[in-house]
Amino acid sequence: MTTSPFHGGGALAEHYDAVRQHSVALIKPLSAEDCAAQSMPDASPAKWHLAHTTWFFETFVLAEFEPNFTPFRPEFRVLFNSYYHGIGERHPRPQRGLLTRPGLGEVLEYRSNVDHRMRALLNSGVASGSWNPLVVLGLQHEQQHQELLLTDIKHLLSCNPLWPAYQDEAARPAGIPSPKGWNTFDGGLIEIGHYGTGFSFDNELPRHRVYLQPYELASSLVNNGEFAKFTLEGGYDDSSYWLSEGWDWRTQNNVNHPLYWQRCDGGWDEFTLGGRRTLDPASPAVHLSYYEADAYARWAGARLPTEAEWEYAAATHTEGSHEGQWFGSAWQWTQSSYAPYPGFRVAAGAVGEYNGKFMVNQYVLRGSSVVTPPSHARLSYRNFFPATARWQFSGVRLARDSG
Amino acid sequence: MTTSPFHGGGALAEHYDAVRQHSVALIKPLSAEDCAAQSMPDASPAKWHLAHTTWFFETFVLAEFEPNFTPFRPEFRVLFNSYYHGIGERHPRPQRGLLTRPGLGEVLEYRSNVDHRMRALLNSGVASGSWNPLVVLGLQHEQQHQELLLTDIKHLLSCNPLWPAYQDEAARPAGIPSPKGWNTFDGGLIEIGHYGTGFSFDNELPRHRVYLQPYELASSLVNNGEFAKFTLEGGYDDSSYWLSEGWDWRTQNNVNHPLYWQRCDGGWDEFTLGGRRTLDPASPAVHLSYYEADAYARWAGARLPTEAEWEYAAATHTEGSHEGQWFGSAWQWTQSSYAPYPGFRVAAGAVGEYNGKFMVNQYVLRGSSVVTPPSHARLSYRNFFPATARWQFSGVRLARDSG
Amino acid sequence: MTTSPFHGGGALAEHYDAVRQHSVALIKPLSAEDCAAQSMPDASPAKWHLAHTTWFFETFVLAEFEPNFTPFRPEFRVLFNSYYHGIGERHPRPQRGLLTRPGLGEVLEYRSNVDHRMRALLNSGVASGSWNPLVVLGLQHEQQHQELLLTDIKHLLSCNPLWPAYQDEAARPAGIPSPKGWNTFDGGLIEIGHYGTGFSFDNELPRHRVYLQPYELASSLVNNGEFAKFTLEGGYDDSSYWLSEGWDWRTQNNVNHPLYWQRCDGGWDEFTLGGRRTLDPASPAVHLSYYEADAYARWAGARLPTEAEWEYAAATHTEGSHEGQWFGSAWQWTQSSYAPYPGFRVAAGAVGEYNGKFMVNQYVLRGSSVVTPPSHARLSYRNFFPATARWQFSGVRLARDSG
Amino acid sequence: MTTSPFHGGGALAEHYDAVRQHSVALIKPLSAEDCAAQSMPDASPAKWHLAHTTWFFETFVLAEFEPNFTPFRPEFRVLFNSYYHGIGERHPRPQRGLLTRPGLGEVLEYRSNVDHRMRALLNSGVASGSWNPLVVLGLQHEQQHQELLLTDIKHLLSCNPLWPAYQDEAARPAGIPSPKGWNTFDGGLIEIGHYGTGFSFDNELPRHRVYLQPYELASSLVNNGEFAKFTLEGGYDDSSYWLSEGWDWRTQNNVNHPLYWQRCDGGWDEFTLGGRRTLDPASPAVHLSYYEADAYARWAGARLPTEAEWEYAAATHTEGSHEGQWFGSAWQWTQSSYAPYPGFRVAAGAVGEYNGKFMVNQYVLRGSSVVTPPSHARLSYRNFFPATARWQFSGVRLARDSG
Repeated sequence: MTTSPFHGGGALAEHYDAVRQHSVALIKPLSAEDCAAQSMPDASPAKWHLAHTTWFFETFVLAEFEPNFTPFRPEFRVLFNSYYHGIGERHPRPQRGLLTRPGLGEVLEYRSNVDHRMRALLNSGVASGSWNPLVVLGLQHEQQHQELLLTDIKHLLSCNPLWPAYQDEAARPAGIPSPKGWNTFDGGLIEIGHYGTGFSFDNELPRHRVYLQPYELASSLVNNGEFAKFTLEGGYDDSSYWLSEGWDWRTQNNVNHPLYWQRCDGGWDEFTLGGRRTLDPASPAVHLSYYEADAYARWAGARLPTEAEWEYAAATHTEGSHEGQWFGSAWQWTQSSYAPYPGFRVAAGAVGEYNGKFMVNQYVLRGSSVVTPPSHARLSYRNFFPATARWQFSGVRLARDSG
Repeated sequence: MTTSPFHGGGALAEHYDAVRQHSVALIKPLSAEDCAAQSMPDASPAKWHLAHTTWFFETFVLAEFEPNFTPFRPEFRVLFNSYYHGIGERHPRPQRGLLTRPGLGEVLEYRSNVDHRMRALLNSGVASGSWNPLVVLGLQHEQQHQELLLTDIKHLLSCNPLWPAYQDEAARPAGIPSPKGWNTFDGGLIEIGHYGTGFSFDNELPRHRVYLQPYELASSLVNNGEFAKFTLEGGYDDSSYWLSEGWDWRTQNNVNHPLYWQRCDGGWDEFTLGGRRTLDPASPAVHLSYYEADAYARWAGARLPTEAEWEYAAATHTEGSHEGQWFGSAWQWTQSSYAPYPGFRVAAGAVGEYNGKFMVNQYVLRGSSVVTPPSHARLSYRNFFPATARWQFSGVRLARDSG
Repeated sequence: MTTSPFHGGGALAEHYDAVRQHSVALIKPLSAEDCAAQSMPDASPAKWHLAHTTWFFETFVLAEFEPNFTPFRPEFRVLFNSYYHGIGERHPRPQRGLLTRPGLGEVLEYRSNVDHRMRALLNSGVASGSWNPLVVLGLQHEQQHQELLLTDIKHLLSCNPLWPAYQDEAARPAGIPSPKGWNTFDGGLIEIGHYGTGFSFDNELPRHRVYLQPYELASSLVNNGEFAKFTLEGGYDDSSYWLSEGWDWRTQNNVNHPLYWQRCDGGWDEFTLGGRRTLDPASPAVHLSYYEADAYARWAGARLPTEAEWEYAAATHTEGSHEGQWFGSAWQWTQSSYAPYPGFRVAAGAVGEYNGKFMVNQYVLRGSSVVTPPSHARLSYRNFFPATARWQFSGVRLARDSG
Repeated sequence: MTTSPFHGGGALAEHYDAVRQHSVALIKPLSAEDCAAQSMPDASPAKWHLAHTTWFFETFVLAEFEPNFTPFRPEFRVLFNSYYHGIGERHPRPQRGLLTRPGLGEVLEYRSNVDHRMRALLNSGVASGSWNPLVVLGLQHEQQHQELLLTDIKHLLSCNPLWPAYQDEAARPAGIPSPKGWNTFDGGLIEIGHYGTGFSFDNELPRHRVYLQPYELASSLVNNGEFAKFTLEGGYDDSSYWLSEGWDWRTQNNVNHPLYWQRCDGGWDEFTLGGRRTLDPASPAVHLSYYEADAYARWAGARLPTEAEWEYAAATHTEGSHEGQWFGSAWQWTQSSYAPYPGFRVAAGAVGEYNGKFMVNQYVLRGSSVVTPPSHARLSYRNFFPATARWQFSGVRLARDSG
């Protein structure tokens, strides 16, 4: 991770407060029961997100740098550890929904307590060179969990036949015109990866050269209307569009439409954070697995882009405007397996487990979604999920070879 | 089911209030989060128990007999149906813990609403002959769920590494002296099954003749001290004591002590409704599967009793006193498969699904436990669970052939 | 097990030869490949049956009574042990089909070798009192495996889309006229269980008293025509006929007809040991699970008999003739859980594992089937299988309460 | 696929005979039973390999180009189809071991029949331009199955506690000296992918540019002695060396040594095609999963190479000699996910399913192994397996960043 962009402790303290308060604001529409339930092993309870992000600051910052450190409650070290073997034992992930204690109230106390102590540290400025990058990492980490909190809550509420809304006025991305155009790129020897003095995760580094063949990228994302056409025309039923493993996945799980779509009088409804609604054909198609994204692309006579193709194109286009929905609309599957960049180095200590150990059998998604915290998006950002994942706001931007 | 013992509507209304209030009293020590979680498919959230028992009255009594019946909320007909195919669709059992809505508050409103309407019906006395047996059945049903609510909460809290107590002063059965004596019975042609004018479930009928060989029954239940000896002396590791299926179960699940026991400094702790405590050697050994109960009996040179042997002996002994812990201590596994009595008839309509359809691959337990509502125990009562079940307060009374 | 009926060694030696040769005759229509494959964990390769029955004589008779005992091949002690923990290690059951070595040829040599040594022992007459019951038990055991060999081969061949026949002229039971009549029995205090000097397994003992209510038993088995009517009229689709566990089993396994039935031009074909044939409506319906048998009975307004009802009726009727298909047609499910008779005693040593340890979650079948060796059937015989088992020749005789 | 290198029909016919005869030669040491069994879903019976490779010629060549085509047996079209949806139905893969019919004899007849007809076609020379590439593809395909036949037989025999040898004198790769040296490469803009007029699979095309950072590659493969050191020093027990998914895999499957290693008196034995033998420390470590290969590399302070790094280095070194075991020793895991090369095009028709549809969640292996047919290895060859696969001869060549 690069040096923090926050040079003065005061600016960082303000940023700390803003990020931390946003997490608590996200659960305002929820009951304590909503915050405690876990709808599948891949998801976590909202309460667990609130506690785990707090655990991160207590474990990696306060335990190292707070004078006379005493943990808020020693058992939390195990209870709210996600996957850091370097920290020791962990509570089994699929059983997070059984932790009815500590209750939401106590978790909020835990947050207040840690925030109070963190502010004292931030304002002291003592040894700030040492903890500054860790605090920045902790806030980036918390922003990642803010998005997960929303995708996990959406999944939980979707399991309830009462179709409860998280918020009546939940955000929706802007509509996407159809049909789309194509932008052409010459390729050649280009560079990708993070540069500059801003924050990045270790997996975005080092910036390095990649050789690209000429290619074209769609000017916008695939929208619901286009995806409904694929569905209507038998795209889910024709094995020739599917990867072999995708076809097996689709058959075993009886998948024949995107995750939250529901048939309704010959048309489609969609479960959203605003409850059940009629499907909007102009919105980007989301909640697609890699297999569905790939099958759609094949059906459309195209393919998924590589992450280098995506980043190079986005760098070119976003200089001017935010047209083309590079960010804030939907995560965009790439055909790039999540792998280390040439020269990748893992950080020392337990924070080194942050990214590197997940670099197998996952695919990179680029851009950001309608529920990504705005300050959390950047050109070189590498999100990653297994090919089966559907509960994220994952969509498709098509690519094709040029010439 | 036999005729209700409540002849005047007033007495029944009072009984109704008492039973219904007891259910709500049981969740006093619990948070809304505690009431919403489900720790395994066999268990249900406390909130679900509160709602389902209410659903029973609304569906089987009010929907039939209330003038101008309007359901509290129509969706609850599906949401809180347990297993009645005759009523229609049901919410999938393993997903009861995902129903964060309706919240506990709304479920308590549901209870108040139905109670209010039920009291109006009970006090009206109109057509009481028709609904009286259904109301009595509903209250017996609610008492069954009161016990399940406690066994399910115990299981949920046991999954939390903080070992939270349900109640510091949770009830424990009286201690059992060791060694025990044996009572001898001549057998011959005897009768079992419910008789008299009191309530019984359909599965306790008809009373009928059974021929018994001479036998002996232990004067008390196996206690923790005795069971610890079985454990210490390798009872879990010697296949010769085990049914073949039990040995496989034990091996696959790595079972080597009763469900809630935990090793502690060379001895044993036990998780109880009062939290984690040192194992009391004089308390009855509970939370045993049928396989463990059977293996213990074989190790002790004895066997499990049949349900006819148990009922005949209990009828003899309980005339004098409650010595011998026939009731209120632990459910006692019998070697009798849960099967219809000769001449068994299922009730017409959806309530006919109450008992009969479960008569395969389950074993009968007799007596009652420390968490059974006191007025819910009787000589002819047939509790039943699969051989693998351990989360009930299930123990062992030994039997052997006589002479 | 009772004393052997073979008093002279010569008669036993002749019986030994006859039974042993019959096993080898059974594989005449099969290739070495047919004999090596295992189609499911419940079934075993034919080769394994040939070896295991030989292992039984080598382990329980020769190892004890042969002077200067040397095993044919020491590794076979583990390889062909079925479930006797007392003998030590066993090869995992689901992997019996991977034992391509020893080949069929070597297994037949193993049989010849053991037969040669057994004949020497049988003709020596030394200490015959000790081994005589074990030899008789071994032959009964081999007859059980002769039936299993055929049911397992039928299952294996049914998995092959070429529908190969075991034998073109495979035996079929005599047709069953429809509709059937009912025979009435007064019940009262009767006796069941083995008596006399002939052989029986330990589970048929001791003979004991049972009290029966008056009942009726169908004069013949349910035939394919009757069962097809159940199928046609939606019997598989109406939960009210099914045990709850049976309904779940049927739903999860998508069961909507007996195991080997196949739809064919609006009618039914059936896979038989003679290959694929048009379903014969007059033949007994077989390959039914307990759940299907029970659902059929409920649909027909009847129930399954208890094993005492069956045995008492069969004793009465078979004195005169073999009408009514008590034997040689199909095994008949009873509603009796497989449990020890009052006073049941397990034999000492490893042969004690023969029966007793299976007495849980299985149901008793009475009679015998078209593939049971004829000398292997008797009134008191207790066959047993789990409620899910369908690959045996298992059918239904209806019962109902009298009066 | 590129144009066939066989210009004259005669040369191709000779090559056809040689490849086809080699397959049959491979089963010489095996019995019919050995050839029929399937030890796991990923493996196939030897008999199936013999039949499927024949099916390939009958389906893709004879059915198209033979005058008056009549299939040997129409049912084989389904029975021996592996994964070609374009051809229609397939027999379920995990049930290939249940196909005891057709027997080995009939499968060999099938081969003779198809060979006879193929020779007629090859010698006719009619329209050879059309079928020539398909015949060449079929022979490459058969060579792939020759290797699989041996890895599958090894797995099958390893499941037999008698440890039977396939061949006493089974081939072993030459020993690898330890420690190894490092070769340094400058990288830059290089090219990979097939070129020239020889045969290649579609996945090796098109040849294209890749930019490489400077890197080093080990001069030889990791050998058993080195891998035993990793095992001895706790490499399997320290999560810091493992990918997160690899650690879970290792824990769930209780993996703590390479697939065929067996502990023996403080040292190691190894199951080989020559039976059970003492582990040879100088032989290349094989039968490693991707996870084990990656963990070893991390433990050794290195990493796995990318496929471009491997191909570029191999091209450089193999010009001189075959030192360094690029081929004929063990397949070498790369960190490259199996993905289409830029500009990759799938062939039209069912043969288009050959490679492309497997390009997800698999990793590329380079080189060739001791059981790869010699004429089947080439610089640009891309073998691929999931990260969990261990039954192939898969080993490790280390890489590291330069400078």
